Amino acid sequence: MRKVLELKLDSMSHFLSKTDFETIRKEVEEAKRTLLNGSGPGQEFRGWLDLPVTFDEDELNRILTCAKKIRSMANVLVVIGIGGSYLGTRAAVEALRPYFSSRKRMEIIYAGQTLSSQYLSELLFYLKNKEFAINVISKSGTTIEPAIAFRALNNLLKAKYGDEASKRVFVTSDRKKGALKKLANQQQYESFVIPDDIGGRFSVLTPVGLLPIAAMGISIKRLLAGAKAARNHYLNASYWKNDAMLYAAARNLLYRKEIPCEMLVNYEPKLNQLAEWWKQLFAESEGKDGKGLFVASASFSTDLHSLGQYIQEGRRLLFETVIQINEPQKDVLIEKEPSDFDGLNYLAGKTLDVVNKRAFEGTLMAHISGQVPNLILNLDKLDPYSLGYLFYFFELAVGISGYILGINPFNQPGVEQYKKNMFRLLDKPGIQ
Amino acid sequence: MRKVLELKLDSMSHFLSKTDFETIRKEVEEAKRTLLNGSGPGQEFRGWLDLPVTFDEDELNRILTCAKKIRSMANVLVVIGIGGSYLGTRAAVEALRPYFSSRKRMEIIYAGQTLSSQYLSELLFYLKNKEFAINVISKSGTTIEPAIAFRALNNLLKAKYGDEASKRVFVTSDRKKGALKKLANQQQYESFVIPDDIGGRFSVLTPVGLLPIAAMGISIKRLLAGAKAARNHYLNASYWKNDAMLYAAARNLLYRKEIPCEMLVNYEPKLNQLAEWWKQLFAESEGKDGKGLFVASASFSTDLHSLGQYIQEGRRLLFETVIQINEPQKDVLIEKEPSDFDGLNYLAGKTLDVVNKRAFEGTLMAHISGQVPNLILNLDKLDPYSLGYLFYFFELAVGISGYILGINPFNQPGVEQYKKNMFRLLDKPGIQ
Repeated sequence: MRKVLELKLDSMSHFLSKTDFETIRKEVEEAKRTLLNGSGPGQEFRGWLDLPVTFDEDELNRILTCAKKIRSMANVLVVIGIGGSYLGTRAAVEALRPYFSSRKRMEIIYAGQTLSSQYLSELLFYLKNKEFAINVISKSGTTIEPAIAFRALNNLLKAKYGDEASKRVFVTSDRKKGALKKLANQQQYESFVIPDDIGGRFSVLTPVGLLPIAAMGISIKRLLAGAKAARNHYLNASYWKNDAMLYAAARNLLYRKEIPCEMLVNYEPKLNQLAEWWKQLFAESEGKDGKGLFVASASFSTDLHSLGQYIQEGRRLLFETVIQINEPQKDVLIEKEPSDFDGLNYLAGKTLDVVNKRAFEGTLMAHISGQVPNLILNLDKLDPYSLGYLFYFFELAVGISGYILGINPFNQPGVEQYKKNMFRLLDKPGIQ
Repeated sequence: MRKVLELKLDSMSHFLSKTDFETIRKEVEEAKRTLLNGSGPGQEFRGWLDLPVTFDEDELNRILTCAKKIRSMANVLVVIGIGGSYLGTRAAVEALRPYFSSRKRMEIIYAGQTLSSQYLSELLFYLKNKEFAINVISKSGTTIEPAIAFRALNNLLKAKYGDEASKRVFVTSDRKKGALKKLANQQQYESFVIPDDIGGRFSVLTPVGLLPIAAMGISIKRLLAGAKAARNHYLNASYWKNDAMLYAAARNLLYRKEIPCEMLVNYEPKLNQLAEWWKQLFAESEGKDGKGLFVASASFSTDLHSLGQYIQEGRRLLFETVIQINEPQKDVLIEKEPSDFDGLNYLAGKTLDVVNKRAFEGTLMAHISGQVPNLILNLDKLDPYSLGYLFYFFELAVGISGYILGINPFNQPGVEQYKKNMFRLLDKPGIQ
């Protein structure tokens, strides 16, 4: 049986030896113990570790009921949230839904993730003739981007639906505290909880992600089942059989060898938004105390025609982590052309996915010969189960990796500084 | 009168002194002379320099006529091209068109920019019930990604429209040579020329970009007028008054101070695709001989909630170039709420764009205090004229910057290596 997910290290032999991996082994094992024991900094934010097995069945059913309700009342779901409050949802939705929307299909639009006035203005105009519902996601309800968007969108909702508007608002917030929870109680909005012990970037498998993902018709039970299988495997497997540990090991080894940038690469653009989720997960977890890999992303072969030259021959500061999908959901046969005007007949009878895989293999060879280390993550399929597995894999890996790096992977002290300046410039009461 | 585009160096004083800029001045002036004289490597690819003043009026009118024809016959234009054959178009279209599409509005879809079989398969299905036309863009016609897509999409077109299909194909290719030009002659496709002396990443203001941009209802005359104004200014202005020279100077100075990554930042997500165009322009021009800044991009405040922590407190390897738009096309007033449930009433009466600008200022202060150099590019408005101006600014800047770096900014030798491997793996005839 093929594995759901497999880290291939064969192509790393030019850059990291088995001895390198043995040298760092104790640190990795120690980091994993620290994570699982809760003996490291930030230990109070490890709720995501057990989430796939502790998720309350009744709560899951309530999410599914609500998702169904949303689908029956609306053709647009507006998800209001920023950072971890929307990146996981967007990653799952774009990975698992078709590229091109049909009119019959439920649409998802993100709001409160930008301060662009053009975006909000055009969105308010667009929604006028749509049947829509809102899922507003914010621990406190006072984060400025989602709060402003919610004010404007909720006013539109009230203008459009009157007294019925409150049935179209779904709140995901803190269990007890904060402006949003208070409002939800007052207005009797249906509401869900962001657990206290799970930070935003680890929240995709909480109601933060599960409600909108389910509303888009994706099986959240399969998503959770995949995460559960990953948990079962990676919490127990020993070092050489544990890809989460080996991935954490490899990236720290490369970082120590003065390769400061990691690029997450796919050959399937449906994974572009997964890369955005991944970038937050790793950049926000590890980028502190003047440390951490700088993270970037690309989709090949698209970006081989833009960043390819740099990767091949520019400054040597990158390694690549390539997500490669074994089995595409759909494929296209390349047909024979009588005239062979484009000289492609040598491909006739092959499928497009075969060409894509040869592009991957050819690029791998080229980049390795250009001294760019490549880690390969083989994902068997792109479906809810595999994606849940992958989410958990990366979350566990960053926990381990962060402790190896010697930082607290669960806080984000640097995010506050620009906010303080901004509030001062906006004359916010109580800010000096 | 406010300038169309202005580079602000005030915030750089902590990192680069006036003396630094004076030290590199001679090199910058020399690089600019080399570029304009055609005395440097790659000089045969400088056609873009004079394009805004040499563009043939008749050809421009033919493009406009064709664009009109496309709009009358189709509601979807499929642009088939990869790298420079679509990134400029996409940058302009996303910068200048609304975020949310209405059913009445002409749609643009890109193809041949990926080998994803899911993408092509879903696109073929989607187009079945659409009125569509194709603009296929490839110098040779044998680049594998667009060639495969064109085979499949042209077959669909023929199945759908029969003998009329050939009127729905618009070709942009080499003047004389290549499979695509030959086919265009045979089939009497309407066709346009990619000038010999302009490389893909500099081709947005050739028919490569102009035809699809015009077909999307954007004024290409204003786009060219902006580029012409930029040309007039930047070819003539002396060092301290020449932002293209100063930008080239600043990025080389920072590179020499061992800051190896440049991040292009916007506060308006409509510029996200401009960043993709910019990344190709700089990465492919400069990433060679083991040199060059690694380029990345972000949209704030969105990505302050994902990459913000890293930028503020991670490893010090980045500087930011921030495009800031003075005047938004649309704005939203923040209204007073009787209950002030979210505590936002202190913003009532302000517009969202004001908040966005305070976010920019607050972030600038925060990042500078975090030792991240910031170059600010003030763009007065986001309209076709300004965008044409900005395209030309960056093209000129990369030409100068590349010569300062000591590389040929107009070739891309490293792009071939993966292709050779791939063709060998695909048993392409004549490849060994």
